[in-house]
Formats: sequence, structure tokens, C-alpha cells
Amino acid sequence: MQSKMFEWSIEEQEIARQALVQAYTRETEALMAEIREKATQITEISDIWDLHDYLSTKRYDIDGKYDERDLTPVFALAKLIKEGWLVLNDLTGLTAEKKAKISALAKMG
Amino acid sequence: MQSKMFEWSIEEQEIARQALVQAYTRETEALMAEIREKATQITEISDIWDLHDYLSTKRYDIDGKYDERDLTPVFALAKLIKEGWLVLNDLTGLTAEKKAKISALAKMG
Repeated sequence: MQSKMFEWSIEEQEIARQALVQAYTRETEALMAEIREKATQITEISDIWDLHDYLSTKRYDIDGKYDERDLTPVFALAKLIKEGWLVLNDLTGLTAEKKAKISALAKMG
Repeated sequence: MQSKMFEWSIEEQEIARQALVQAYTRETEALMAEIREKATQITEISDIWDLHDYLSTKRYDIDGKYDERDLTPVFALAKLIKEGWLVLNDLTGLTAEKKAKISALAKMG
């Protein structure tokens, strides 16, 4: 039996889904702008390999964070708030308990 | 006992080394220009992941091709000629036999 914390209504699931889409859009648009900018500063081959390493890290991070199999995305939402891709207001419609939990998690570590 | 084909004088080793440096410079400068150009055309996140895949392939290819442990680089030189990063004239000073062998390999599948 799951605690109330982990019961998500259809509406709440939809709010979480939309918040993830919003954060994903923000984060990927920022990444595209960043890569376009980094590319203008390539002057030696080590810059290319640094760019490759950076993309490897970003891809792993983004693929994991927005994994659609995560159906109760408290941790994903908290991480996105911590990183600045979401603010608590993007989660309007979730219970106060869930928002408090997500906000607390976002302040950790 | 090695065949004459694989005996490289100090001078020939230096010619081969310089040709590899020349090809490496050409190829990496072309790659830098290509990445700068590709970056200007990034409009969606899949373009970023395509760029990442492309860099993974190029890095593997370039790291292998210019591996300094290859002390008799007949195959490396042939591949670089085939790809257009070197021409036979860049190998002036090698024996005619070696140049013929490299040229023949460059024409193979």
C-alpha cells in the first residue's frame, strides 16, 4: 500500500507531465543556444573533444531526468526546480503536501 | 624476419611522421570548420544528438587513424590518401616500392 504522498490523481499526473514538458523545452532550448555559442569559439581540436565530452554528459543527464517511465516524478520535479528549469508556480494544481515535499527535496544536496 | 617493405629508415619514418601530422592538421581543421557550420544549423534537440553521434564517430575514427604506436604506417597513410587528406606527393622521400604499395592500398575497397 502506498502512502498518500505517492497517490497522483489524473489531474496531478497531467500537471506533472506538462511541467516536465515545459522544463524539457527550456532546458533543451538553453542547450541549443549554448552549443551554438560554444561552436563559435572552437579554435583547436581539443575544443571539439571538450564539446563532445560536454554533450555526452548532457545527453546522459537529460535522458535520465525526463525518462517517461518515471510516473511519480517527485524527484525529477525537485531536481528541475533545483536546477532552475522549473519554479514551484509551474506546479500549481498539485496538493500542498506534494509541493512542500518537492520544494524540500529541491533544497537538499 | 621482416620483408624489405617493412624496413623503414630513420628518414622514411620522419617523412611518414610529417605526412601524418600534415593529414591530421588538414583533417582536424576541416572538422572544426564543419562543426562550426553544423552548429549554426541547430534548430531542434535532435540536431544536438545527431551532432553528438557524429562527434563520437569522428573521434573514434581520428583517434584510431593517427595512433602514434603504429610505427610502420603503410595502412594509415593509404587510408589518408584514400580519404583525400594526403596525396602521394606528400610522401616524397619514401622508396618507390613503399609509395606503390601505399598507392595500391589506397585504391582498394
